[in-house]
Amino acid sequence: MTKIKLNIVILGAGNLAWHLSQELKKRGQNIIQVYNRTVNKAEELSKLIQCEFTSKIEKINNNADLYILCINDKALIELSNSLPIKNKLVVHTSGAASIDFISQPQRGVFYPLQTFSKEKEINFKEIPICIEAKDDNNKRTLIKLGNLLSDCVYEIDSDQRKTLHLAAVFANNFSNYMYSISEKILSNKNIPFDILKPLIMETASKVLMHSPKESQTGPAIRNDQTSIKTHLDDLKHGNYYDIYKLLTEKLRAENN
Amino acid sequence: MTKIKLNIVILGAGNLAWHLSQELKKRGQNIIQVYNRTVNKAEELSKLIQCEFTSKIEKINNNADLYILCINDKALIELSNSLPIKNKLVVHTSGAASIDFISQPQRGVFYPLQTFSKEKEINFKEIPICIEAKDDNNKRTLIKLGNLLSDCVYEIDSDQRKTLHLAAVFANNFSNYMYSISEKILSNKNIPFDILKPLIMETASKVLMHSPKESQTGPAIRNDQTSIKTHLDDLKHGNYYDIYKLLTEKLRAENN
Repeated sequence: MTKIKLNIVILGAGNLAWHLSQELKKRGQNIIQVYNRTVNKAEELSKLIQCEFTSKIEKINNNADLYILCINDKALIELSNSLPIKNKLVVHTSGAASIDFISQPQRGVFYPLQTFSKEKEINFKEIPICIEAKDDNNKRTLIKLGNLLSDCVYEIDSDQRKTLHLAAVFANNFSNYMYSISEKILSNKNIPFDILKPLIMETASKVLMHSPKESQTGPAIRNDQTSIKTHLDDLKHGNYYDIYKLLTEKLRAENN
Repeated sequence: MTKIKLNIVILGAGNLAWHLSQELKKRGQNIIQVYNRTVNKAEELSKLIQCEFTSKIEKINNNADLYILCINDKALIELSNSLPIKNKLVVHTSGAASIDFISQPQRGVFYPLQTFSKEKEINFKEIPICIEAKDDNNKRTLIKLGNLLSDCVYEIDSDQRKTLHLAAVFANNFSNYMYSISEKILSNKNIPFDILKPLIMETASKVLMHSPKESQTGPAIRNDQTSIKTHLDDLKHGNYYDIYKLLTEKLRAENN
């Protein structure tokens, strides 16, 4: 396989742009410019990867091989429409947005399915990267670029990606909300949240070996009405009664 | 601190008995007998730790220092009542049951807050062990025993333990249910669940550094009505519409 070496413009300077641009540079790609509406953030990131920066759309370098939009979904269409770019590959990095949020004819998606925090190192090799493109040439380019960063590159079309994004809301946002509720319940009784951390890690790491459906435990699934009643009584005057009740009912119904 | 060396009878032969008895033996304790209603399971575990076994309550050795009940909550009171043990320390290992489920005057709780699978190795050093006892002597014994196994021993009374158990339902059972739902959503579209595993692990490992409340992301918290509407439309005819809706509403309300 021939080596890939692209001239890339990064659009956006948030958590994803931050991690992705550094990783691309580390893997030998040529980041030539960072664009961001807020100039300070563009400058900060550009310093880190030693490239040009701009906050003006008309100053965006129109000679790159690839434009990666690392911005939120709402801004995608508008930015793509105003880009002074015609016959170059333009991709977004969103789980939720269709490929057609990009208006350029050569369009694609390069979606790293992970949650990024600026200050937390992340191993790109383990991040699934979901690729989509309108033509085969561009698809090959994006797959090559994906393989450079990660061991898990998937071709996922917009419809599948929509499903994936929905599933990720449960796997990430809602599971985190469950942690958050448990933290709140403990803090009401002055019990340190630390006590639950090993359980949280173990619960998550179980999915690496077993289907979560198979490893489901708890009062709901064993129909432990005593515990369920006690828990509902405890939650009666709080914010989480409905959630406990609904999840318990659904879990029970699914396993009967 | 003087070394502790106890003669222990293990009652029960499930996942917890399996892990706990091996760990106690490894840490120099003397498991003298395993009791279990189903004789085969008692025998299997007793072979592993090379001790006696019985399935008859009247044959339980009444000369041990400590009796550890590793059985489900429903059976606790009955087994404790029928135990031919009077002036010895008897403890249960349950998160949900009060200390008074044990009828012996010398009673206690030795609750390892973790989820156990028979075939998965587990590092006891990181498992929080919650201790409760009626008198100080027994409390000291249990704390000593806890420290032998784990770096995280907590004194937790029955009321706090009840709260802890409730919080653990959210942190473990319900977060696992979220994984399970995401698996189901993907399988409907023939997308491999593997693609979500790095995200699940990263979401969990974030709690080690940050409060989950602070790291909450997703459509609900950024009030991304487009994604929320798309997701609800997709879920309309399935089992998870109500769950998505409720969790999104609660998340939004909490963060407004």
